[in-house]
Amino acid sequence: MNRSARILYDHPLSGNCHKVRLLLSMLALDYRSELVDVPNGAHHAPWFGHLNAARQIPVFDDAGHVVCDSQAILTYLAHRYGSQWLGADPFEAGEVARWLSFAANEIGNSLQPARVHYLLGEAVDIGAAQAKGLRALQVLDGALAGRSWLAAARPTIADLACFPYVGLAREGRVPLDDFGNVLHWIARVAALDGYVSMPGLPPATGRAAGDTINAMERDDA
Amino acid sequence: MNRSARILYDHPLSGNCHKVRLLLSMLALDYRSELVDVPNGAHHAPWFGHLNAARQIPVFDDAGHVVCDSQAILTYLAHRYGSQWLGADPFEAGEVARWLSFAANEIGNSLQPARVHYLLGEAVDIGAAQAKGLRALQVLDGALAGRSWLAAARPTIADLACFPYVGLAREGRVPLDDFGNVLHWIARVAALDGYVSMPGLPPATGRAAGDTINAMERDDA
Repeated sequence: MNRSARILYDHPLSGNCHKVRLLLSMLALDYRSELVDVPNGAHHAPWFGHLNAARQIPVFDDAGHVVCDSQAILTYLAHRYGSQWLGADPFEAGEVARWLSFAANEIGNSLQPARVHYLLGEAVDIGAAQAKGLRALQVLDGALAGRSWLAAARPTIADLACFPYVGLAREGRVPLDDFGNVLHWIARVAALDGYVSMPGLPPATGRAAGDTINAMERDDA
Repeated sequence: MNRSARILYDHPLSGNCHKVRLLLSMLALDYRSELVDVPNGAHHAPWFGHLNAARQIPVFDDAGHVVCDSQAILTYLAHRYGSQWLGADPFEAGEVARWLSFAANEIGNSLQPARVHYLLGEAVDIGAAQAKGLRALQVLDGALAGRSWLAAARPTIADLACFPYVGLAREGRVPLDDFGNVLHWIARVAALDGYVSMPGLPPATGRAAGDTINAMERDDA
């Protein structure tokens, strides 16, 4: 396949983009990262509005087949290229759906805006965002009591959907120290084959397949 | 199967519960509705906390198999009993995931709290909720331009997940009149076989299978 046939419209500091980078790397799929400089308003350009009317990254173009929304891209990729990342039965499928919603709603409205506030100075009710973030972490910590992964006995897209903004919680000044189960889960994700890092997340430990360790950096080179 | 083997922990005014009632009826599945009187605090009872630590309805108990979260229950039911309600390929699966997230986040944080404000007098930033609700309706209306259903050429759980709070928007004093595509989609959902109504939604037109037209009312009788 031509290397340019898969394009991730991307920003290196976006946790939502990182969800997709993680799965693309873990699936060892080749792709090209196309920078959309959101902090400088590049998503307001007309060409990007044609690609995604919601003007959000990530957007994934799979040889002309365009998917928007990080949860949708994870679901698409797993269905097309790696069903081991989906639930294996109706119950697990339900649990995956539950955590994808949790990533979009509970995490996406707490840890994510808190981080954006400190990183980019965006106006956010920071006290409310941090309090909601702590509640989300409590829920996550409870769900991970006595189990390794959120939706099944193995990692699924549920884990990847929740991981980046939880791993980056400290950048929104939400401490993780009281959530031992979450801390162990973060370490487990970071130890998966194909794990890639981003600023603020644990470094890759070198277990990743060399060829796919960071497709974005390789393509930028 | 014993009629009590499936239990929906339910409230007749809950749009999230109604998502599940719709799919249960459309799948012609027998179940028993168990009232959890949330407006009067019944979800704070210890027994309910054991069932769902998040203390939210709906909860679905399928012969001892408990699923929480309306998006998760829809996904579980479709995987187990009616895969025609899921996406048929990776792209449609991604679109379903996108709209389930939209139901949980964009709709769940706008039209839903606006309605609760007027219905139950809950403290809500009503102006912000209504403005966000209008933006969600604009997105939905745009997505439905030239197409009948959100995620595929036929109805899926994406439509059922978004339907109740959109259909009930006027109860949060968010007008639907400017959204012609949404109004036609509401009418299409209400014309589906097995459609059931609730206060504020279009009435059933009688096309529903008689035996399943309103399992909740039948069980309450």
